[in-house]
Amino acid sequence: MRKLFVFDTTLRDGEQSLGITLNVDEKLEIARQLVRLKVDVIEAGFPNSSPGDFISVQAIAREVKGVVICGLTRAVKSDIDRCAEALRSAEYPRIHTGIGVSSVHMEKKLGFTPEQVVETAAAAVKHAKKYVADVEFFAEDATRGDRDFLVQVLEQVIKAGATVVNIPDTLGYATPQEYSRLISYVMNHVKNIENVVVSVHCHNDLGMATANSLAGIEAGANQVEVTVNGIGERAGNTSLEEVVMAIHTRRDHYGIRTDINTQEIWPASRLVARTAGVPVPAHKPIVGENAFMHASGIHQDGFLKDRQTYEIIDPSTVGASASKISLTARSGRHALKHMLETLGYRMDREALDKVYHSFLQIADIKKEVMAQDLHSIMQMTV
Amino acid sequence: MRKLFVFDTTLRDGEQSLGITLNVDEKLEIARQLVRLKVDVIEAGFPNSSPGDFISVQAIAREVKGVVICGLTRAVKSDIDRCAEALRSAEYPRIHTGIGVSSVHMEKKLGFTPEQVVETAAAAVKHAKKYVADVEFFAEDATRGDRDFLVQVLEQVIKAGATVVNIPDTLGYATPQEYSRLISYVMNHVKNIENVVVSVHCHNDLGMATANSLAGIEAGANQVEVTVNGIGERAGNTSLEEVVMAIHTRRDHYGIRTDINTQEIWPASRLVARTAGVPVPAHKPIVGENAFMHASGIHQDGFLKDRQTYEIIDPSTVGASASKISLTARSGRHALKHMLETLGYRMDREALDKVYHSFLQIADIKKEVMAQDLHSIMQMTV
Repeated sequence: MRKLFVFDTTLRDGEQSLGITLNVDEKLEIARQLVRLKVDVIEAGFPNSSPGDFISVQAIAREVKGVVICGLTRAVKSDIDRCAEALRSAEYPRIHTGIGVSSVHMEKKLGFTPEQVVETAAAAVKHAKKYVADVEFFAEDATRGDRDFLVQVLEQVIKAGATVVNIPDTLGYATPQEYSRLISYVMNHVKNIENVVVSVHCHNDLGMATANSLAGIEAGANQVEVTVNGIGERAGNTSLEEVVMAIHTRRDHYGIRTDINTQEIWPASRLVARTAGVPVPAHKPIVGENAFMHASGIHQDGFLKDRQTYEIIDPSTVGASASKISLTARSGRHALKHMLETLGYRMDREALDKVYHSFLQIADIKKEVMAQDLHSIMQMTV
Repeated sequence: MRKLFVFDTTLRDGEQSLGITLNVDEKLEIARQLVRLKVDVIEAGFPNSSPGDFISVQAIAREVKGVVICGLTRAVKSDIDRCAEALRSAEYPRIHTGIGVSSVHMEKKLGFTPEQVVETAAAAVKHAKKYVADVEFFAEDATRGDRDFLVQVLEQVIKAGATVVNIPDTLGYATPQEYSRLISYVMNHVKNIENVVVSVHCHNDLGMATANSLAGIEAGANQVEVTVNGIGERAGNTSLEEVVMAIHTRRDHYGIRTDINTQEIWPASRLVARTAGVPVPAHKPIVGENAFMHASGIHQDGFLKDRQTYEIIDPSTVGASASKISLTARSGRHALKHMLETLGYRMDREALDKVYHSFLQIADIKKEVMAQDLHSIMQMTV
């Protein structure tokens, strides 16, 4: 079965949401959870955007191994130099550079002619190739641009050495049918496209990021760019959990697989929600508190007769069922550790001992210790 | 341009979420806002499910005019009798009855043979027709059932007098491609389908409710069933605001229109969030606080040069821009009223005077009165 590469940009495009700022330790914690999830690529940040982002990308490149670590740049030399520096200790470094290809982006934002855009794009990829073998190119606002111009840009960046080409729906403007056609057009018209990875990157402005990404994948793309809980600019990016679980649940339809360890989806969701300060919406598919709840009498009745009547995903597949375990003063360290992991907390033996001690004090007062109590305990003790 | 009928089920399938219970006054308030939005049909509840729901449907049928008022029933005589009673004063009453058509629903939930399902469905429609002219039939779990059996059921209910046939993706299981094919199949194989309205009703379990609904509409359906903010069982229903604004923004692609007054989308969103106690997620398309925000330097720079670089919907189109107005002690009743309406509050002159008085007291202390302050004022004074 064809493998789909999962490129996680929670730490770059996700962190790029209003009001979210993660410190280095939080970014490292999220990166480690992304490794447990088994994503293929972690986009760790945009190193030249701020000193803090540089330090974070550098720290992740140093400490997080076994996965591609990627940094974003504009098609600008100084961005690429700085990104290469931040990625120096990465086991598998990737530079992600690109430029706008729609006429509104070229004229109004860049003040460039189409020829200048092609030259700048190819030059950026060539410059990045001096530092790393793995260079991804993004054609910003591709879905609102001319498709033959897109073909021309992609041919030139592939010639310049790009290993991955990313065709973003930057504004969440496309429909699944259009996006599918655009990816097909690229697959059929770009010279040497079979030698590179084609990546889809969608935004959710009209609520279709997941469907658009899947339409692009059906048309031949083999990398998807996502964020945990779908956080990101404006209405956010494509949700990791939605694409992964749609492919997993509808394997019969999509005929493609990912390497994602689905059991780590809920812990990842809760960790990102907590550190980013963006709560998971109750009705969010896969990861919302309501996602597996049955409320009406008819549904509950059907569910009790046969869960298949109203359930297409077993919550335990995504690590959600554990959240229903309740803890009491009789619970041991193992149950506590398990519950904390479900909530996105990981710790060593020593820290666990400290937390367990506080837990027992609370458990003596309260009959049942709930998720909310554990969050309070973690805030007090760690 | 072809018209799409908007069937709002916020008060039925939306209210059917865990933890949401609206009282009669709240339901009436929402129904009145739905009229301002200009939806075509309000599904007001499931009258036989509880005495409270009966009273709500009855009150809405009595007081809300100029729109179809619909009540849900199982394919059971007592449900239909009770629904007809609740709808008695409605200007345009519709009974919405139906039954499961997938094998798991027929065997495990109902314990019916397929023949019994066809008979029960047709008998329910016939019984409903004794009370009202407008009868909608839903084929529950249609997307997991046999399509030729679905054709057979639909032909019989149309023969029995159904005016609308609803083909739900009850579990949010379908892909846009599949759902499009199913609706096409129905359009091409069901006898007399051209004499009825075909309705799409999708759930968001895999994050594709909006794309699936639109795929069904492209295949020929001319009614869409939605809820405000996408609330509903599990991961919720199709969001009204996403489908309406996708059609509005991509009129070039879809070539279809709705009668929705888009300016009332934000007030409706805020009203439902407040009364249902389900906050609007920050990244929710169209109605989230983040939906029109630009956070990163690159995006802000582009946006300031030309808003078209990073914006596909002008926030004022959906009544969102007004939320940025700030109020001070110098603001008059008119500005206060406008801001309150944006937040989903409507009131008469007398109530406004009371609120204005409290507002001035707060405004004297705080320089700027924010949305949060207005919510507090409303809680204290009304």
